[in-house]
Amino acid sequence: MKKYCYGICFLISVAINILFSIHLYVGDGPNQEISCRSSLTWSEKAAAEAEAVAAISCSGHGRAFLDGSISDGQPVCECYGCYSGTDCSELSPGCAADANSGDPIYLEPFWMQNAADTAVVISGWHRMSYEYADDPMMSPELDKYIRKLHSVAGNAITQDRYIVFGVGSSQLLSAAVYALSSQNSSSPSNVLASTPFYHLYKDQTRLFNSKNFVYRGDTNSWQTNNTDVIEFVTSPTNPGGELKKSVTGGKTIHDHAYFWPQFTPIPGPSDHDLMIFSLSKLTGHAGTRFGYVVYAVLASSFFQLSSVRWAIIKDKDVYDKVLNYIYLANAGISKDTQLRVLKVLKVAMKADGKPFFEFAYNQMSDRWNRLTSVFSKSTRFSIQPRHPLHCNFFHQTRQPSPAYAWVRCERQEDNDCAAVLKAGKIIGQSGSTLSAKDRYARLSLIKSQDDFELLMQRLTELVSLENHNIEMI
Amino acid sequence: MKKYCYGICFLISVAINILFSIHLYVGDGPNQEISCRSSLTWSEKAAAEAEAVAAISCSGHGRAFLDGSISDGQPVCECYGCYSGTDCSELSPGCAADANSGDPIYLEPFWMQNAADTAVVISGWHRMSYEYADDPMMSPELDKYIRKLHSVAGNAITQDRYIVFGVGSSQLLSAAVYALSSQNSSSPSNVLASTPFYHLYKDQTRLFNSKNFVYRGDTNSWQTNNTDVIEFVTSPTNPGGELKKSVTGGKTIHDHAYFWPQFTPIPGPSDHDLMIFSLSKLTGHAGTRFGYVVYAVLASSFFQLSSVRWAIIKDKDVYDKVLNYIYLANAGISKDTQLRVLKVLKVAMKADGKPFFEFAYNQMSDRWNRLTSVFSKSTRFSIQPRHPLHCNFFHQTRQPSPAYAWVRCERQEDNDCAAVLKAGKIIGQSGSTLSAKDRYARLSLIKSQDDFELLMQRLTELVSLENHNIEMI
Repeated sequence: MKKYCYGICFLISVAINILFSIHLYVGDGPNQEISCRSSLTWSEKAAAEAEAVAAISCSGHGRAFLDGSISDGQPVCECYGCYSGTDCSELSPGCAADANSGDPIYLEPFWMQNAADTAVVISGWHRMSYEYADDPMMSPELDKYIRKLHSVAGNAITQDRYIVFGVGSSQLLSAAVYALSSQNSSSPSNVLASTPFYHLYKDQTRLFNSKNFVYRGDTNSWQTNNTDVIEFVTSPTNPGGELKKSVTGGKTIHDHAYFWPQFTPIPGPSDHDLMIFSLSKLTGHAGTRFGYVVYAVLASSFFQLSSVRWAIIKDKDVYDKVLNYIYLANAGISKDTQLRVLKVLKVAMKADGKPFFEFAYNQMSDRWNRLTSVFSKSTRFSIQPRHPLHCNFFHQTRQPSPAYAWVRCERQEDNDCAAVLKAGKIIGQSGSTLSAKDRYARLSLIKSQDDFELLMQRLTELVSLENHNIEMI
Repeated sequence: MKKYCYGICFLISVAINILFSIHLYVGDGPNQEISCRSSLTWSEKAAAEAEAVAAISCSGHGRAFLDGSISDGQPVCECYGCYSGTDCSELSPGCAADANSGDPIYLEPFWMQNAADTAVVISGWHRMSYEYADDPMMSPELDKYIRKLHSVAGNAITQDRYIVFGVGSSQLLSAAVYALSSQNSSSPSNVLASTPFYHLYKDQTRLFNSKNFVYRGDTNSWQTNNTDVIEFVTSPTNPGGELKKSVTGGKTIHDHAYFWPQFTPIPGPSDHDLMIFSLSKLTGHAGTRFGYVVYAVLASSFFQLSSVRWAIIKDKDVYDKVLNYIYLANAGISKDTQLRVLKVLKVAMKADGKPFFEFAYNQMSDRWNRLTSVFSKSTRFSIQPRHPLHCNFFHQTRQPSPAYAWVRCERQEDNDCAAVLKAGKIIGQSGSTLSAKDRYARLSLIKSQDDFELLMQRLTELVSLENHNIEMI
């Protein structure tokens, strides 16, 4: 009997072991799914969607975006340079290198390398209100980080200064002119800039045909004796890339869009009355449309306006006017944008900004090395000379590495340089767009790597042809 | 010997049973972790961060956001109504109900209920370029969905019309005036609106002190014989909420910010030359700053401008001017914003918009039921009468449910109605802000539920006091 029991028990035990084995190695179905459920809930769908789109390869020569046109159930690849086709793998031979716009894709690789830190999940209910808790229009957190950024980069004084955000620096240029201009229609302010200059200065100022200010053109051609002058000072200049000072001694608007270590040596922090910065050129996020203006403090002021928010009397009149403009113009900028900018800037500032600014600077200086090498072989074309300066950020004397090449056609008959380049399959921006002579043309050096490689290829071909004395036009 | 073998085998088998049991119910450590790893990679950190912030409870009387000020390592709760404290659980007794601004938090619950569908993950490299592939400034996908939205809501004709996006409808109001105004400085356009009207019309128009247009005020006080007139037509009106037509017969800018089923019956699709819509009032996303203008087609036109993008000659001149304005003003709106708006609109349009518009309409009509009930007990205060109309969207005759109550103080001595309400701890917008008499005050009915409950409480108290004949002022 006992033997029989042992036999049964043994068989039962073996059977249990077999069941366990099956359970363990085949899986227990529902239990495994439960134990493998991600800890994310409502955000998981959006996250998976974003990763799926990011994984669309576009052959490394383009990018697909969440809101791209849909084809075959997924967003299409939007191709760089002369690539085309559904996966950007087809190279159109003989197509032109487009170096016209200052489209700053040159930093895209950095943001892709920092994907986890720079992604942001915006919920359906993110900041629906018109206002922040402590400010009607501007994120206090973002204001804080912008001040830290300037401290890290060492390129501007922000202490005791006001900051106002705008939809790209373009809006702030308008706002600044408005704020500084005469309130007396019979004696409007005269708006000036030094040639060559960014076309927006002229076009925007003329846009509203205001009684309060009038566009007068180049500083050189204007007598400034005791007249009401507002001067755009771009430093570094667009397109030359050199650091500049005011020439009129009037009221100034300093456009510092390019005053960052990747483009120019930083001799010291800028300390002017009104300084405009742009995210587009700093981090490459031109599509985000974010800029800001930093207002200096005047030790004494005519304008004593009471305000519950500031006890110190500074140049609040100017600040208030710009704020009013932005408010009336569009009630501040998108809060989604401000959140995204905050994310991006936090990453740019990590480790004192060294990884970010070194990446960006290496991109620009590599491109300039290649550019100068090609142009050194040409007498038909020249580019702007560069002068080394000490840089406080990189703690060394270095050349500028401007965002643009300012090409001059040296042959007498080549007085339309953009046309000459176009015949060589290079699209640049004509000098006259920057209110200079058409003997010059501007080439953008901040586009994608594919665009830059194509530009170098076409330039190399052009210079080779020159050196083989073959006329192209 | 055999018996001994059986014994050993049996013991071994039982030992294996025990090991399997331990393995199965305690877990196999590393294997379980591997099988539970989420399939997400770079987006997971951002998703987890967003969910953590969303989970901050704020006692249901406030909201924490990713970019809020940090306290104790996490963003602070930003409280609604009269709630305060770190978790918005403290109610400040006797604090005023703020019904001044049109801050549209009334739809927040809908977006929270649709969290998974409305979240959007924006990568660090999302659309860095200034331009879209097929358009310099505006997302073609978003354009497509806006047209679908109007088709679903049945409130505007978009076929053969142009759409331009702006940073909130406020920017588009400026752009529209600019586009329609005289190019002849000696004969500027006269800008008019019917009282009461949104203060921005006057303030913005005066902002630039342009030679091309001048603000003239109320339509009633203006002789319109053959003069160049630009009229703002708000329909439904702010604050009254009735549908309106042009009175001057001049050029019109129709502000349709409130022309949606939750606020008004939709008798049919609007078909005017220039119609402005705003995301703020439609979906509640005021912080996002997104609006758009729809341009009608004129069958014939003086202005034949060639453009490679449109073969049909319509009123492109107006379109081009607005586009130019937006471009010069700020080079288009943020592409992050456009992506977010696309996400939100797709959800709003699901199932022919029924879930969304029904939710929104129920919110508004419930609030109006309670409001009319309170005011029916008062002779000191009255609100605007409402007139039922047939609604094509809900297929029934229904009352309007405007975003605002337009309160009139009926007693002769109460000629500053906002002050009377303020003494009753209700903050409204004075009639003069809308260029009407101060005998009126505007109360916002589209704020958070907490804000509305507090408003109702204060109104009830006020009417009770009235009915007990206690003077408050």
